[in-house]
Formats: sequence, structure tokens, C-alpha cells
Amino acid sequence: MRVLAIGAHPDDVEILCGGTLAKYAARGDQVTIMIATNGNVGSPVLTKEQIADVRRKEAEASAACIGADLIWMGYDDEFLFHDRQTRMAFINAIRKASPDVMFVHGSNDYHPDHRICGEIAIDCRIPVTVPLIETEYPAMARIPHVFVMDNLGGVGFEPEHYVDITDVYETKCRMIRSHASQDEWLNVQYGMDYIEFVTKMSSVRGMVIGARHAEAFRSLPAYPVMGDASLLP
Amino acid sequence: MRVLAIGAHPDDVEILCGGTLAKYAARGDQVTIMIATNGNVGSPVLTKEQIADVRRKEAEASAACIGADLIWMGYDDEFLFHDRQTRMAFINAIRKASPDVMFVHGSNDYHPDHRICGEIAIDCRIPVTVPLIETEYPAMARIPHVFVMDNLGGVGFEPEHYVDITDVYETKCRMIRSHASQDEWLNVQYGMDYIEFVTKMSSVRGMVIGARHAEAFRSLPAYPVMGDASLLP
Amino acid sequence: MRVLAIGAHPDDVEILCGGTLAKYAARGDQVTIMIATNGNVGSPVLTKEQIADVRRKEAEASAACIGADLIWMGYDDEFLFHDRQTRMAFINAIRKASPDVMFVHGSNDYHPDHRICGEIAIDCRIPVTVPLIETEYPAMARIPHVFVMDNLGGVGFEPEHYVDITDVYETKCRMIRSHASQDEWLNVQYGMDYIEFVTKMSSVRGMVIGARHAEAFRSLPAYPVMGDASLLP
Amino acid sequence: MRVLAIGAHPDDVEILCGGTLAKYAARGDQVTIMIATNGNVGSPVLTKEQIADVRRKEAEASAACIGADLIWMGYDDEFLFHDRQTRMAFINAIRKASPDVMFVHGSNDYHPDHRICGEIAIDCRIPVTVPLIETEYPAMARIPHVFVMDNLGGVGFEPEHYVDITDVYETKCRMIRSHASQDEWLNVQYGMDYIEFVTKMSSVRGMVIGARHAEAFRSLPAYPVMGDASLLP
Amino acid sequence: MRVLAIGAHPDDVEILCGGTLAKYAARGDQVTIMIATNGNVGSPVLTKEQIADVRRKEAEASAACIGADLIWMGYDDEFLFHDRQTRMAFINAIRKASPDVMFVHGSNDYHPDHRICGEIAIDCRIPVTVPLIETEYPAMARIPHVFVMDNLGGVGFEPEHYVDITDVYETKCRMIRSHASQDEWLNVQYGMDYIEFVTKMSSVRGMVIGARHAEAFRSLPAYPVMGDASLLP
Amino acid sequence: MRVLAIGAHPDDVEILCGGTLAKYAARGDQVTIMIATNGNVGSPVLTKEQIADVRRKEAEASAACIGADLIWMGYDDEFLFHDRQTRMAFINAIRKASPDVMFVHGSNDYHPDHRICGEIAIDCRIPVTVPLIETEYPAMARIPHVFVMDNLGGVGFEPEHYVDITDVYETKCRMIRSHASQDEWLNVQYGMDYIEFVTKMSSVRGMVIGARHAEAFRSLPAYPVMGDASLLP
Repeated sequence: MRVLAIGAHPDDVEILCGGTLAKYAARGDQVTIMIATNGNVGSPVLTKEQIADVRRKEAEASAACIGADLIWMGYDDEFLFHDRQTRMAFINAIRKASPDVMFVHGSNDYHPDHRICGEIAIDCRIPVTVPLIETEYPAMARIPHVFVMDNLGGVGFEPEHYVDITDVYETKCRMIRSHASQDEWLNVQYGMDYIEFVTKMSSVRGMVIGARHAEAFRSLPAYPVMGDASLLP
Repeated sequence: MRVLAIGAHPDDVEILCGGTLAKYAARGDQVTIMIATNGNVGSPVLTKEQIADVRRKEAEASAACIGADLIWMGYDDEFLFHDRQTRMAFINAIRKASPDVMFVHGSNDYHPDHRICGEIAIDCRIPVTVPLIETEYPAMARIPHVFVMDNLGGVGFEPEHYVDITDVYETKCRMIRSHASQDEWLNVQYGMDYIEFVTKMSSVRGMVIGARHAEAFRSLPAYPVMGDASLLP
Repeated sequence: MRVLAIGAHPDDVEILCGGTLAKYAARGDQVTIMIATNGNVGSPVLTKEQIADVRRKEAEASAACIGADLIWMGYDDEFLFHDRQTRMAFINAIRKASPDVMFVHGSNDYHPDHRICGEIAIDCRIPVTVPLIETEYPAMARIPHVFVMDNLGGVGFEPEHYVDITDVYETKCRMIRSHASQDEWLNVQYGMDYIEFVTKMSSVRGMVIGARHAEAFRSLPAYPVMGDASLLP
Repeated sequence: MRVLAIGAHPDDVEILCGGTLAKYAARGDQVTIMIATNGNVGSPVLTKEQIADVRRKEAEASAACIGADLIWMGYDDEFLFHDRQTRMAFINAIRKASPDVMFVHGSNDYHPDHRICGEIAIDCRIPVTVPLIETEYPAMARIPHVFVMDNLGGVGFEPEHYVDITDVYETKCRMIRSHASQDEWLNVQYGMDYIEFVTKMSSVRGMVIGARHAEAFRSLPAYPVMGDASLLP
Repeated sequence: MRVLAIGAHPDDVEILCGGTLAKYAARGDQVTIMIATNGNVGSPVLTKEQIADVRRKEAEASAACIGADLIWMGYDDEFLFHDRQTRMAFINAIRKASPDVMFVHGSNDYHPDHRICGEIAIDCRIPVTVPLIETEYPAMARIPHVFVMDNLGGVGFEPEHYVDITDVYETKCRMIRSHASQDEWLNVQYGMDYIEFVTKMSSVRGMVIGARHAEAFRSLPAYPVMGDASLLP
Repeated sequence: MRVLAIGAHPDDVEILCGGTLAKYAARGDQVTIMIATNGNVGSPVLTKEQIADVRRKEAEASAACIGADLIWMGYDDEFLFHDRQTRMAFINAIRKASPDVMFVHGSNDYHPDHRICGEIAIDCRIPVTVPLIETEYPAMARIPHVFVMDNLGGVGFEPEHYVDITDVYETKCRMIRSHASQDEWLNVQYGMDYIEFVTKMSSVRGMVIGARHAEAFRSLPAYPVMGDASLLP
């Protein structure tokens, strides 16, 4: 199976579905992580160019933890918009990954880049299969199934599906720690420890299914629905 | 796996999850159909006792189509209420079936018996596992996973999971036709053909997943969540 | 009465409110069909220009079935965006039709063009009446009442109003069949028969009101509400 | 047409749909007001028997304003419960009125008697048509269409339909003033003027449709849906 | 200020609002804990009478941690129902506590006793102020403000208000540990550590407001609304 | 405390939170009113430039009633869009006001400018604190708490918090009357008296909390939540 997780910033997919991706990878599925923005405002000390460069390297290290491919879109952090050029770039990138299932941000996520990134990704679900929309990569044969990822605090997010990630929790933490610059940034900006922060969500989602750690998802309900929870690892 | 479908009236589970039960049965799972009321008002010509007797025989014939067990609770049709005696009777009946997964009516179903039957069933989910609640059958070892069934017209019901029932559609129709008295009653009371009626729902649910016929479900989201769509056949 | 149905692609309004439009037309109301995109990706074999040309002719034939006017906006299929130019073009087109009631796509429709088309149309509801917004056609005297159309599979759509279209069902089918290229496209892309597909929705919506075929709508609840279901035919 | 409004207490239907009932009556429809409880705790000075007696006379006076029939159920105020006896009494009373449309309290009304009264009424919608459920009055031929009434403050109530009651506003006020004891009680208990209080709701509902006064309703969405806003006066 | 928290079982209010109660108590407010059932099925080894006795002593010890009063209703665990006798007993008990604010279980809590306990408590909100409803304790002068408590896993619960309980977290844990029998029961029945379990919820709720531990609430939106988050400690 | 109310048009914040702003100002908080568009279509007789000029003067007079600062963004009325330039302009303007709390339009407001203005404002909540996003004014130290304002008719808006504005109602009316051109425009376009119109909303919101006049709000639930109703005056 081919799996694509689309995050707005470097580290988003690690936080929201890193364990699930690790499980896919562990069983041999082909995983791609696609990142919309370059994270170029995520530093209290570096320049935009410097931090973008750091973050790309961190994203590569994180993807390498599970042998995932990385697609780096490079849009400006905090300024992702849904226009024709961006739609077309997403269509091309998704076709490159050619996924059976996609993981995307939900529509009521707290961060504008997340919300807009999720909207673009969902709006590409059908166009990626249309041959007359021509991009570098060819049209996909089949609409991918879409899972919507949880958000920070689980605000306004009612899980439909849970993935027990207890056995890959350490891998998820390794992926998270690859984003060392963000650990520092979160400490400066919000005063939080990164791993502890992430673990709060996996603990409470796990509590609901009786597991130590879990990640939570919803299927995009829109027509046509291409699969269900059995596509989860 | 052990499967229990709880309907308010004879024919409810056939309409709402008959195909799914047929798939479980076909792969060797143990299926039980539990019916709360005796259907004793469902006739324009027979007495209450006569129609209740007819309907029990029809329910037995329908269950026999897929080799399912039948639990007949015998409450008065249109007058199911949620009191202590009924709660206890449901606990005992569910323990008799001892299911891994239960199918129940949802809370916004159009018929009061459906709504109340679903409420009682859901409220028994935890008590069935409590040893100090003593009934004829012993406490179950594990809380069953609960799937909420669709309703007529799909009013206020947003499916999470779909089961493609195309290959067992004929079996579902056989189960439906076992309830011959209702075919007549629906014709007299509402002027509808039974199979055509049921097929409208399976057609539109199937349309969403690209199948000829499907049935739709939601998982009960309440803590603790014991499973997911992978428990569906 | 003047009626305007705004669809994203040629064939959308036929599928979602073709029967209702046929009823309006049959009783003498003036009906306009406005189509946002040119459908220029809807073919597995033709070029963009060729298929757009075919689809315009099909849309004209369909509108002719009920004597409706056609407004062809000509935006690129799959790439409708909500910008100032498009907003202004919609204001002008709506003023041309000068409707008492408008039918539009809902906000959680499955297709991005549908969702965005509906958003633009709704956002024009008030500006069309503002004299200082100058377009080719003059400002309308009154805000139109807005009905939101159903979607494929009825996903996330809870009907408020139903129109029994049984007596105009054949006319609706004629309108659908006018879009012959899409019948072919749906067969190639999804393997479905067009009329059968459309009939699933009208059957299940009709089931709820005891009619053979029906179409379902909601009124836009936003202030000011200009009318109600009595505006339906 | 035959119209039945079911309120939990004397004065409820006047507040929530008094204007609408006045419009029905004015055009010649047969209106019945059914009141579940006897209002026997609604006084700071009288005994239960005294205030119940006063309130029945007030209810009769109010009904007389529009020539409506009155059905007085006489349950204890604040202690309406949904049991078999009460369900049966409601079935009989509804059959007596034999309505084409019913107005009922909604499920999230602020007062337990309102919520429970609405639930019982809705749950009788189908049983009233079943011949084998025998009561003093015979089974009705057809399920009535159900409109859910607004609540105080409009909390959690999203209107679907509005009735412009500007031209019958004075009649509504006369009906309200028939409940003189409640005017006094509200002044003692909450310090409010009755007419002013009621007028706040009709003003804000009217504001949405551009009328001086309006009342707001939803159709019960449950299967089968028997009509729509065109049943409103 | 007078504060009343109403839980279905011994330990429920400690889990869901123990920290908040500790804050009220610490600032001098009068706190009462009212417990609907006697917890008499909560043991794998004791008899019903034995475990009920143990749990009452534990509840007293827990209340003593913060100097709260305890009202022990003594209904059978797992069999709380909403009937007239229970409604009246709740009215009397609430009047005894005479609260300015009440904390109650929400309507979609996972456990039937929780759901029903919350429903009864909310339905008493108005009757407690009605003089003609006579109980041992006199009618209250004012309707209390109602806060709805969170639930396990936060399923279907969208917080409106958060209370930072970091500084009373140890007190909350002491209250929880007073229920030693449940620690054992949870270990036997579900295999979980009690404090760790409770801490998952306070951690994730705290995460949203940037605190180490928090508890989450909603105000009951029903008319009349008597206060807001400023009533929280 | 520093308070920022962001309205789409001159007069929006006066209508939706004018009383609340007056209360903040009266107790010494620093209030800023920021207006996205110049209102340049709001006249039946003046040119765009003339009416924009009139409305700016009216907005200044209104702000002066409570000693508030005014930020005039000057976008074209009816044509506010969410693009990079506008996002950046909002970031800069919000930083200028540097608020602890912001009041914004909600996502389901009836007017496109309102909806889009609210979306932009909410999407700036986090970027305003990011140092690497450089604008004329420096990055803020802390994310502001966001209150979502009510809308006309309260359509789809469920209040969480109410502010009793009875004692500043006259001030609110003075602010409203400062927008004399709109009083005229509303009379011409919709036939309504401005103060009466506004008072309908404050009356019905007040009714819920037992006050003569109130304004209603929700907290933005998105992570991180920075405060609660105790931030209201």
C-alpha cells in the first residue's frame, strides 16, 4: 500500500500521525511525507533562510527514521493560500506519491496553514485522477481514501478510528526529536517540553481504547468514500 | 466471533443490517438476533395474539436463513419502556448471546420503540460485565463493541462505515420476505412494496462506496471504545 | 416567479434539482440555469476545447427540455476560485437572471468546484441588490431566497424540504440524457449508468415523503430569510 | 385542516405558537389546544387545587379567544413522566383532536415538563394510526405532520420556518393576558412583564424575515415526513 | 458561595471536578458532594452490602480532604432511573445543599447512571425554587447556575471553560486515592492505575490552556442562564 | 487591559458588541475599533468616495463616544478577500492595537465581508506573535484571547457568554446613532429603524440572563485557549 501524509509544517505529521506512519512503514508499506511550508519563521534567532534550511534537514532526518520519502513544497510558513498555482502544485505532488490513503489536516484545526493545507489536499482528491489536468506526474488511477488527522488538544475533533501506537511509540519520539529546532522554539515561545507535549495527546487517545498510546482519525465522509478503518495499520 | 443484532420489532435488523449479518454468518461467525417486542399490533386483520404468533414464526424463519439464533423478548409492540425490569431482562439476554459486537438502533430513529430499544441496549453495554449484577446467565468477560444501525431514509444518520452487501443481497431479500405479514401490512398501511422499499436504502448507501448494495453504520463513540470497522465483515 | 439554479458543472443542476426546475417551468415560471465551469476536463478522449464545446451544446439541449435560459460562465473545470473577478462575474450573471429564488451547492459538497461555486453564489446574495456595485445588468430590487441543493449520497445533508418530482421524472431523465458525454465519462471513470445513478437519490429522498421520486433542499438560514418552502413548486 | 398544539403547561402554546394558531383559526381551520399538566404549582399564594382550578379557567378563556377546543390532561405540574399510562392517554387525546398537523415542544427545551411532553407527543405520532392500539377514540387514518415549537430565548433552536404574525399579534396578546395568574407569578418569581417578555421573542424572530412579529418552527425530520412549511398558515 | 457537585457514583466528581472543588474549598466556599448511587456493584470480591459500606466510608474520607459535606442518596449502582420518587429525592437533596452553582454529568456521558443522574439533576434546576413543591427542605430562592462536567476521554465534550488545577493537583490525587477499593477494581476489571488514568485527562485539558493540569466544563445553555465562567474558582 | 474589536463595516462592532466595548472603556480599559472596509457602497445617493468619507467620519464620532482608538483599513465594501496582502495588513493593524482580547465576526455570519473579516482576524491570532514576520509594528508577546461576536438574528449562534449592557445601553445607542448615513440607508433599502432594530437583539439576549439588554459571545475554542469569560467586562 502507498501512504501519503500531508502536513503544513515540518513536524506536523510526526505529531499527529507519526506512530501510524511508523506502523505502516514497519509492515512494508511505502510512506511519503509531504510538507507544504518551509517552516521559515520557526526560530527566535536564525534568519528565515537559515531556519528553513535547518528544518528541511530535520524533516529529512525524521522521514529517514521510518524510511519514508519526503516531498518538500517550500511555501512560506504562515502564508499558505489556496490559489490555482498551489492547487496545481499539490496535484502534482500527490500524483508523485500516488497514494492509496492520504492523511490530511482537518478543517477546524487551530492554525491557518493547517486548515488551508487540509482544504487544498482534500480538494485535490478528485482532480489527481483526471487525465486532462496535466502535470509532471501522470493522473492517478483511483481516488485515494482520506483520513483526517487529530489536532492539538483534540478541539472539535471527534475520533472515529484509533490506532494503537504503543509498540512504535519510541520511533514516534525519535521522529519528533529530529525536529530539534522546534523543541527549542516551543520552549522559548510557549515554555513546553516537546515529547511530553506530544505524549499528552497519545495518552488521552489511548485511554479511550485501553492502550498506552494511540492516534485518532476520522474518514473524510465525502462522496465517494473509498475505504474505511481497515486501511489503517 | 460472536455477533448480536438487537431490533425493536421483528424485521428491523433484517432491514438495517440483514446483509451484514449474512456476511458474518457466511464466514462462520455465530450470529444472534434479539427482538424486543412481539410485533403484536402489526396487522389490520388479526388479533394481537394471532399476529404476535405469526411474527414469531416469521422471525424464526428469517433467522434460519442464515443459521442465526433468535432471542424473543416479547414486550408489547409500541410500548417498550426503559425501566428496571426491562434493563435487567436485556442484560440477561445479551449475556446469553455473549457478543463481541452488538448492532443497535440509534438515538434519533423515527420510531419510539427503536429509540428506546437502542438506549436500553447501549445502557447494558457495561453492566453485562459486572459480576455483582446477577442474572440467569453469567457476567461477560469483556464489553462488546457497539455499532449503531442506519435508519429509514437515513435521517440524521451520517455513516462512518459501509459494508458492501452486494454478494449477499439475495439472502437479505430472503430474510425480508420471511416477514410476509409485514409485506401485507406495509401495503395496507403505507402502500409500499417491501423489497423495493428496503432496496432504496441499500442502493443509496452503496452508491457512496461504488457498490450495488451496502449497509451503513457508526461506532458508538462512548468510552471505552472496544474496536472499529475492522470488526465488520 | 423567476428561478435561478447555479451549478458548478454542466449536469449538476439537472442531477440535484432537475425535477424541481421542470415543475417550475411546467407551471409557467421563468427558469435560468447558470453553469460556472465549462466542463473541459470531462472526457477521456477529447481535447479540452472539444469537450468544452460538446458540453455547452449538451447544456443547451438540457435547458431546452424545459424552456430554460442558459448562462454559461466558462471557467476552467476543477479550477474555480473565489476571487474578485469571479465574484463580480457572478453578481452580473445573477442580476441578468434576476431571480426570486436561487438554488446553489452546499458548503460540504464533495467536489471543490461545487463547494466554491455555492460559496460565491451565496456571497452574491446581498451585493446583487447594491446599486453602487456597478455591472452590465442593474441592481436587483430584492435579495433572492436561497435553497441549498442536496449532494451525491446525501452526505452531511439533512433535508428540510422535499419536492415530489414523480410526475416530472421522465423530463428530468431527458435532461440528464442530454449530457451524453458524461454518461460515457462516468462509465469509463467510475463504471456507472447515469440514469440509474441519479435515480438512487430521488428514490431514497422520495421514500421519506412516501413518493416515488423526490428532490431535497434546505433553506439558507442566514439573515435575512426571504421566504420558505412555499416558494417551491 | 385540523390543527393540534400540545403544551406542557397552560400558556405554553400561547407563548410559542399563539399567533400561528390565531391565523389558522382566522382562516377557518379547526384548532385544538391540549395541555399536559394542570399548572398546579404556579402560584405563590394559592393552594395546588385552587391554582389548578384558576389555570383551567384561564386556559379555557384563552382558547375561546380563537374558538379553539381545549383538551385538559391534568397531570401534576413539574412531574410529567413518560410511562405507559401517559403514553396511552396522549394517544387517546391526540386521536380525539385527529390533527393534520401537530405543534410540540422540542427536545432541548429548558423545562423538563416541556421536553418530556414533546417526547411523548412525538412518540405518539405513529401509534395513533395503529388500529390494534385501542382507546376511546378510533385510530387516525394518517400520521400527522409535526412542527417543533421554538423555546424561550431560542436556545439551541435553529428555525426552519417562520410565520409572520404581525396581523394577529393583538389576538396573541389577548390569549396571553387570559393567563392573568401567570402574569402575577412571573412578576413575583422572576420580576417580568408578561407581554413584554413574549414580545421579545416575536420581535427577534420577525427581524429575520423583515416582519414586526413572527413565530419560528422546525419540521420534525423523522421518517415519514408528511408535509412541509406549506402546511403553515 | 455554595457549590454542589452531583456524581452518579462515589469517585465520579473527584475524577471530573475534584480539583475545581478543592479550589472552591480553599478559598472558603461551602462545598457539598452528592452521590446518587451506593456503588454496590463495584467489587470483584465483596458482597453488595459490604462494598456499599466501604464506598460510603471512602466517599466520606474524600469529602473530608476538602472539608466538603456529603449527601449520600444510596440508589443501587447501575440501576438509577428517572422516576417521580427519584426526582423528588433529588429536589430535596439539592435544596439541602442550596447551591449557587451545581456541577452535573452531561447527557452523552458513557455510563447510563451518569447520563441519567445528570438528567435528573438538570430537571430539578427549576422545581427546587417552586414553593408548592413541598419537601423536607424549603424551596430555594434562586435557580442555581449549572456547569456540565467533562467525561472520560472527553468524548463528544467540547469545553467552554477551563479551570487550572495545577496548584491543587495533589489534593485532587488525595481525594482520588481515598477511593482505594476502586483503584483495586479498576486494576482487576480494566488493568489501569487510577491516578495515572485521571491524570491523562487533566494533562490534555491543561495543554489547551498552557497549564500542567486543568478540568473542563460547559455551562448549561438552557434558559434562564444564571451566570458564567466567572463563577468558577 | 487592551481590547480590539474588528468589524467588517463601519457600525458592525457597535451593533454586535458596542455595549461591551462601552463597559470596557468605562472601567478604564484601552479600546480599539478596527474596520476592514470603507463602507463605500452604503448609500443610495452619494458616490463611492463621498459615502466612504462620510462613513469614516461617522466611525470616528462613534469611537469618540467611548474614547476608543480607530483603525481604518479602507478595503472596498463587499469585496474583502483573504489574500496575502490583506493578511499582512491585518497582522500589522492588530499588532498596532496589541490586544489582550479580540472580538471578531463568526464563520457563519450572513454577510461575506463579515465571514471573511472574521476568518482573516482569527488566522492572524498566532502570526502576530511571530518575530520573523516583520511589519511596521513589532510582534506581540502573547496570543490574544478571541471572542466571537453574535450575528443578526442570532442565526446559528449559540451564546456561551452574556454581558449585561443595561447600564451602558444609552451609550451603545449613541454610538449607533453616530452612523446616521446607515440609518437612512437601512430605511431606504430595508425599511427599518436603526435603534429599534439593534434593540431587538439586545432584548432577546438579555431575556436569557434576566437583564433588560445583553450582548452574547462565544470563545474561539481553538488551541491555545488564552482565557475565558472572566476577560469580559
